[in-house]
Amino acid sequence: MRQFDEDLESLKQTLLKMAAKSEAMIDSSIQALVQRDLGLAEEIGDQEEDVNSLQLEIDDRCFKLLALRQPMAHDLRFVIAAMKISSDLERIADQAVNIWENTKELLNFPELKPLIDIPRMAEISKGMVRDSLDAFVESDATKARQIVLRDDEVDALKDQVFRELLTYMISDPKTIQVALQLILVARHLERIADHATNICEDVVYLVEAKDIRHHAEEGKV
Amino acid sequence: MRQFDEDLESLKQTLLKMAAKSEAMIDSSIQALVQRDLGLAEEIGDQEEDVNSLQLEIDDRCFKLLALRQPMAHDLRFVIAAMKISSDLERIADQAVNIWENTKELLNFPELKPLIDIPRMAEISKGMVRDSLDAFVESDATKARQIVLRDDEVDALKDQVFRELLTYMISDPKTIQVALQLILVARHLERIADHATNICEDVVYLVEAKDIRHHAEEGKV
Repeated sequence: MRQFDEDLESLKQTLLKMAAKSEAMIDSSIQALVQRDLGLAEEIGDQEEDVNSLQLEIDDRCFKLLALRQPMAHDLRFVIAAMKISSDLERIADQAVNIWENTKELLNFPELKPLIDIPRMAEISKGMVRDSLDAFVESDATKARQIVLRDDEVDALKDQVFRELLTYMISDPKTIQVALQLILVARHLERIADHATNICEDVVYLVEAKDIRHHAEEGKV
Repeated sequence: MRQFDEDLESLKQTLLKMAAKSEAMIDSSIQALVQRDLGLAEEIGDQEEDVNSLQLEIDDRCFKLLALRQPMAHDLRFVIAAMKISSDLERIADQAVNIWENTKELLNFPELKPLIDIPRMAEISKGMVRDSLDAFVESDATKARQIVLRDDEVDALKDQVFRELLTYMISDPKTIQVALQLILVARHLERIADHATNICEDVVYLVEAKDIRHHAEEGKV
């Protein structure tokens, strides 16, 4: 194995570690929200620091690979994709922390209703993150394109959550504070799905050297 | 002038063009909001497409510079910074579009109150974007570090806006829909300031080869 291949493989493993931590953060913040128990996400601060450190480490390694190995073609795209993916994973972790903060706030108030759509949004968004990393590891552009389609479902759920919570707020002002935080949670989950979409676009770029962002490839994604 | 220097100079000009468009989008969306006149932002869709195209163009040029010139040290950091800055500018433009969408929504309802803090937040955030690009063009890390400090002011205004609008919502449910949209506008402006902060961090990295994200340089930023 070329030394460079080993470097790329090790970079890939670090990205997977970072993704696993970000997914765990989504999980625990949503668990804390659903079960109304902040203790279920007590490690989220440490996890966020780990994710941040991993991002700095990945960027530093990418810089060194660019400077010392001067990669070309697929290898160069791999290094660029790794930097972009680590940036999206870091923002995903930030969104999980935001959800945790919304949860902390809304636990000051009585429960509004059992949550159904929000955990479903979380499940889909987290699945998109996990699968986008699989597509990356497997260099599978077809899979990446399919994952992107799930973003519409998340957007539709976000709108549904918004409308439902609005009716609560209007009919009973006592629900306003909780409903507001839940609306924000739904937006954070929507953003997680957006970041997973970005990762999928990076995978297509890596595999096919084709930039499909901003519908540059209209109709196919 | 080296050919490579000309390439970097041209990249810089393209980033400035992209930044100017993003700032104009913030301006027009806030004008539309304050003056309750969507027509004041009628070009925002076209502007967004321009910004998206500029991002694709910048990324493509950066890739070619990396592949063909294999830059080292400062030149390499410049190319990496350019990719990151273009990504932040594109997200800033997205936030301006979000503000425009909130405005479209809230114009369905009567005016809540004359807006004071939100235009102020917009002024500061837009100033941070403009100045972060100046710091980039001038390779001025000291300036970049100072701009970052203004982010606290934007955060404080966001909290103030949130609390004020909450009291409106609770005391008069008829204001809920408008207040909700205004809360979201304040969050979009906060995110614009965050992206300007990212750009400043890229400038410090470019000039000093030092990564100050995630308080890696605690106490100084």
